[in-house]
Amino acid sequence: MGIKQNAAILLHARYPKGPRNLISDVAGVTVGHKTLISDDHTVNTGVTVIKPHPGNCYCEKVFAAAEVINGFGKSAGLVQIGELGTLESPIYLTNTLSVGTVLTAAVKQALAENPQIGVSTGTVNCVVCECNDGSMNDIRGLHVTEEDAQQAFRAACADFEEGAVGAGTGMKMMGLKGGIGSASRLVTIQEKTYTVGALALTNYGSTRNLTVGGDPIGRRIAAEHGPDQGSCILILATDVPLSDRQLGRAAKRSAHALARTGSYSGNGSGDIAIAFSTANRVAHFPKEAEETYSFLHDDFIDPVFEASVEAMEEALLSSMLHACPTDGIRGKHLAALGEYL
Amino acid sequence: MGIKQNAAILLHARYPKGPRNLISDVAGVTVGHKTLISDDHTVNTGVTVIKPHPGNCYCEKVFAAAEVINGFGKSAGLVQIGELGTLESPIYLTNTLSVGTVLTAAVKQALAENPQIGVSTGTVNCVVCECNDGSMNDIRGLHVTEEDAQQAFRAACADFEEGAVGAGTGMKMMGLKGGIGSASRLVTIQEKTYTVGALALTNYGSTRNLTVGGDPIGRRIAAEHGPDQGSCILILATDVPLSDRQLGRAAKRSAHALARTGSYSGNGSGDIAIAFSTANRVAHFPKEAEETYSFLHDDFIDPVFEASVEAMEEALLSSMLHACPTDGIRGKHLAALGEYL
Amino acid sequence: MGIKQNAAILLHARYPKGPRNLISDVAGVTVGHKTLISDDHTVNTGVTVIKPHPGNCYCEKVFAAAEVINGFGKSAGLVQIGELGTLESPIYLTNTLSVGTVLTAAVKQALAENPQIGVSTGTVNCVVCECNDGSMNDIRGLHVTEEDAQQAFRAACADFEEGAVGAGTGMKMMGLKGGIGSASRLVTIQEKTYTVGALALTNYGSTRNLTVGGDPIGRRIAAEHGPDQGSCILILATDVPLSDRQLGRAAKRSAHALARTGSYSGNGSGDIAIAFSTANRVAHFPKEAEETYSFLHDDFIDPVFEASVEAMEEALLSSMLHACPTDGIRGKHLAALGEYL
Amino acid sequence: MGIKQNAAILLHARYPKGPRNLISDVAGVTVGHKTLISDDHTVNTGVTVIKPHPGNCYCEKVFAAAEVINGFGKSAGLVQIGELGTLESPIYLTNTLSVGTVLTAAVKQALAENPQIGVSTGTVNCVVCECNDGSMNDIRGLHVTEEDAQQAFRAACADFEEGAVGAGTGMKMMGLKGGIGSASRLVTIQEKTYTVGALALTNYGSTRNLTVGGDPIGRRIAAEHGPDQGSCILILATDVPLSDRQLGRAAKRSAHALARTGSYSGNGSGDIAIAFSTANRVAHFPKEAEETYSFLHDDFIDPVFEASVEAMEEALLSSMLHACPTDGIRGKHLAALGEYL
Repeated sequence: MGIKQNAAILLHARYPKGPRNLISDVAGVTVGHKTLISDDHTVNTGVTVIKPHPGNCYCEKVFAAAEVINGFGKSAGLVQIGELGTLESPIYLTNTLSVGTVLTAAVKQALAENPQIGVSTGTVNCVVCECNDGSMNDIRGLHVTEEDAQQAFRAACADFEEGAVGAGTGMKMMGLKGGIGSASRLVTIQEKTYTVGALALTNYGSTRNLTVGGDPIGRRIAAEHGPDQGSCILILATDVPLSDRQLGRAAKRSAHALARTGSYSGNGSGDIAIAFSTANRVAHFPKEAEETYSFLHDDFIDPVFEASVEAMEEALLSSMLHACPTDGIRGKHLAALGEYL
Repeated sequence: MGIKQNAAILLHARYPKGPRNLISDVAGVTVGHKTLISDDHTVNTGVTVIKPHPGNCYCEKVFAAAEVINGFGKSAGLVQIGELGTLESPIYLTNTLSVGTVLTAAVKQALAENPQIGVSTGTVNCVVCECNDGSMNDIRGLHVTEEDAQQAFRAACADFEEGAVGAGTGMKMMGLKGGIGSASRLVTIQEKTYTVGALALTNYGSTRNLTVGGDPIGRRIAAEHGPDQGSCILILATDVPLSDRQLGRAAKRSAHALARTGSYSGNGSGDIAIAFSTANRVAHFPKEAEETYSFLHDDFIDPVFEASVEAMEEALLSSMLHACPTDGIRGKHLAALGEYL
Repeated sequence: MGIKQNAAILLHARYPKGPRNLISDVAGVTVGHKTLISDDHTVNTGVTVIKPHPGNCYCEKVFAAAEVINGFGKSAGLVQIGELGTLESPIYLTNTLSVGTVLTAAVKQALAENPQIGVSTGTVNCVVCECNDGSMNDIRGLHVTEEDAQQAFRAACADFEEGAVGAGTGMKMMGLKGGIGSASRLVTIQEKTYTVGALALTNYGSTRNLTVGGDPIGRRIAAEHGPDQGSCILILATDVPLSDRQLGRAAKRSAHALARTGSYSGNGSGDIAIAFSTANRVAHFPKEAEETYSFLHDDFIDPVFEASVEAMEEALLSSMLHACPTDGIRGKHLAALGEYL
Repeated sequence: MGIKQNAAILLHARYPKGPRNLISDVAGVTVGHKTLISDDHTVNTGVTVIKPHPGNCYCEKVFAAAEVINGFGKSAGLVQIGELGTLESPIYLTNTLSVGTVLTAAVKQALAENPQIGVSTGTVNCVVCECNDGSMNDIRGLHVTEEDAQQAFRAACADFEEGAVGAGTGMKMMGLKGGIGSASRLVTIQEKTYTVGALALTNYGSTRNLTVGGDPIGRRIAAEHGPDQGSCILILATDVPLSDRQLGRAAKRSAHALARTGSYSGNGSGDIAIAFSTANRVAHFPKEAEETYSFLHDDFIDPVFEASVEAMEEALLSSMLHACPTDGIRGKHLAALGEYL
């Protein structure tokens, strides 16, 4: 927890942190990892799963939205989120070329939980997002298996690890070691306290642009100054009752968090944000034609936006703070941010 | 060819047809199928591949656009088309739950052709679209294999079959047997003749709405009147030099073709259109920072729009005209449109 | 009413019509016109206002969505509808070059009703849509005044005229006289009956494409076969409790109605659809941070989509059926569809 | 020039500035202001016009794109930019409630320059963007006249003023005096040097969030801490040959510049970006059906993105650095940032 306190101080946090300072501070949200590392440092990859709630995601959907900040990316499942405004599967993260394998695993998981799919009801929209870990991992080897995705699914818990784990194992951020980061903030609106949680898979940027709490520290680090390739996946969860439209607005502001870390969303960076709210549920098998929902009025949404940006900025930084120096394929070595602070 | 002449007459074609009246009348475009049918009628599915040109799709990209008419669908690869305006893989079609498997096969094909991917250059965006053939096929069985997708890829040719083949094997259109349909039109602009080709994977609509050339024939057919579930994938190819923006405009008009057949794009219909032009190539490894392209001025685009709608309407109808009565899972039987004309 | 019965028969209506067969069958919706015609036939233009409800539109907003079918158009006010999902002014229709004047009139009307605007609360988003009546009207003369817009506003009622009136005075549809058309349909969902209303400002298409109830009548009419310039504004109103997302889905299907009349949405046709629901109200000055709304579950939305397309198709046709032969600027004469039926 | 050197130092500029450090460093781009200030401090508003080139904007269009960062805004003319990818008028900026008046003035200017409009060719899409200056200005008084807009048009020049002038006269940024700011950067790609210019109309944010070059200076300023209402209009110009798609990508990164100043794009902030390139021209009256354009390959676009963000960040800051302390309506007083540096 020392690292996480450090991060919040570095960023001059305005909103209070949740108890874990993780996305899982949003009640019911859990995260699971499966990490793949070979002894010869050739394989550095994995899978991370974010579950929106402990129940059946297909039967009890949550409102959601996806925002494409920079679409140089290969995610699956975003189209239907846009049309229906709901998420009906966990969100799976992995390396770019393993999206197909993980998608199949996600579909099999949904089929196992829901015998009606494909028989008495329609199919299922599973969401898989990705970053390219090819600089550290033998990505052409397609080392992620369906079983790996299932293990990540089963490992989901509230107290999950950050850093070079799961889908983040082989990721590179700002020329240093990136991976999985997470944070949370508490927002009080009319005497009611809500939680906003963020989780990021970080694989973007050039060292020279790295900015921590406004300090352009990257200018002082003699690391790699390669092109801004890679990607960033940004997941927002909240128990604020936001509609799909409002979640899209919050997701869009993940670009502001990226910018605060020094990113300008390079051409090759597939920056995709997904936001969901656990406050309402949308039934797959509705009992009535009309359903009733509570939503926050837009006039009260500013603290949610601001806390979302703050949590996401810390999640991005946290991915670096939790990562250790790592060796990868072809003799590649990535330093950790901690060495420079 | 009797069927295809029949279709054009039914629809009062205004623009001349290409020599095959298929999407492959656009020079270089080919289509391959792999059809999976089990003796017990349980398995009725497959894969169809549309190749934009005979070369390396990754090294020589084509301008492209995707349009989500109704996003109740699970396609992969659309996000990057939107950002970069290019297509860098063939377009694969299959059943909804097999998207992951086919995506992995498509990735492996691209890796085999391009040893630089994931090593000295970035990754690859493969496009897989789908419809739900669950009413005729044991879709939960995930019968499509990577080898099936590769066989469809290798089978690509200009003189391909229509009807209940490839990805269309188990599809249902307007309560009758649907599948794969295709058509083409010739457009002359300032004394230069271009080709517009259309291919559709049809799996949408209720019988009572079926309209052929303005005739509401569906009202007279005593077939299934179930809900409008399923989907429709609509592929446009052309050698008219259209930009990605213009291709998006053409793709959007696929909705007009759907409407002419009686569709109102039901809630559960994942109606996705992709358009590409073979006229320009975008190099993956550019030689110069600035590249020169020729594009049609928008003032001359109306015949392209009109011919696209006409070709797509015929492709939709053609999928039904080429389909035979078919037996499926759980004793399901679908009649063919030909029985009613 | 003979004309309106005629239209429904021509189109083989499936859903029952509302009592007026007008958009005003949605309770509370009213429409006002101001028609400008000069004796020398030089001026043929006007303003039409659609009020979503009789109250203060700014204080009591309705959920709404706008869909750009073809964006060759100059409407004002669409951006904020997209962001906030609400409509906070009546919808004004006029000729293209008078949008500024009518926008100012709309702003002044909102200021008069709401003394807080610009002082103790923010500004107001007024919506003005347009078509180009330049083929019949001295559009360069900018003959519409703010007072004209105010008169249209004050004239709003449930029993309004169709045809060459208001903003429709100088419009041309399919080479014949277009203008304002409207229709409605009743939809019953789980024993509860709702109304869907449509209103169109029609100024699009080539005669040769005109299709009425599937009959390609335009091929038999020896009228003008000019380019497909102009536009079409398509307004949907309903008391079905749809969210802004669902209203966007319904608005998008206005393209299907256009297609049924023979349109392929030509390059120069600014085809813009706006849909709103009167079922919920969004307060400008909310009392609580969280508000409760009822929405139709998407599983029940198909009849709404289908009835919307049917009503809009009839509205498009109705604009022509109600129009008389008209003389315009530069000796232009437009025949009426009625002469050919 | 002391102020502008100061800004670049504060922001640790990486790319070299253009000779004026203004958007007019892009050859041909000019800016004109008309400032309205009444002696009693009641009226504080105006008009600013950005001309993309000295010729006829309608006959010689430039490629352009608009990006809605947060759509709580009332701009006119964005829809057609999206469909056609071109800008065919100057960009006018003014206060929110004067958009109608300025739009009419812009239309009249286009009519005067182009006698074919509305007679032998179509209409014209004029672009007007806005911010709400109601906290400093009697915005309800609608003090801007058509003549004011025409004067701003005629005043356009390369050496224009920044700060509380033109449309920026009554704007408030981060609780301090905002207005018009501008900056430019030089980008060298393969030995060829291009210019990227930015201009912003700033009216957003809360003081406590103000960040200058990473320094959260706003936390130390005891100014107003009101809600984040207002807006920001962000104009990018460049002679890099970008397509409309690429310009949209660059415009989208204006969000990153906003974020660097401390903004999280509050609910009420209408943040709209427009980008255009002067490198290619699109003829209104094309001579040939096919036209040839040069575009930068996306692989070389990163410096353009980075320089755009840097120029825009400085433009935002420059609007504050050039503004003097100002008195407004209802006794409102705004301090200038210069007092705190």
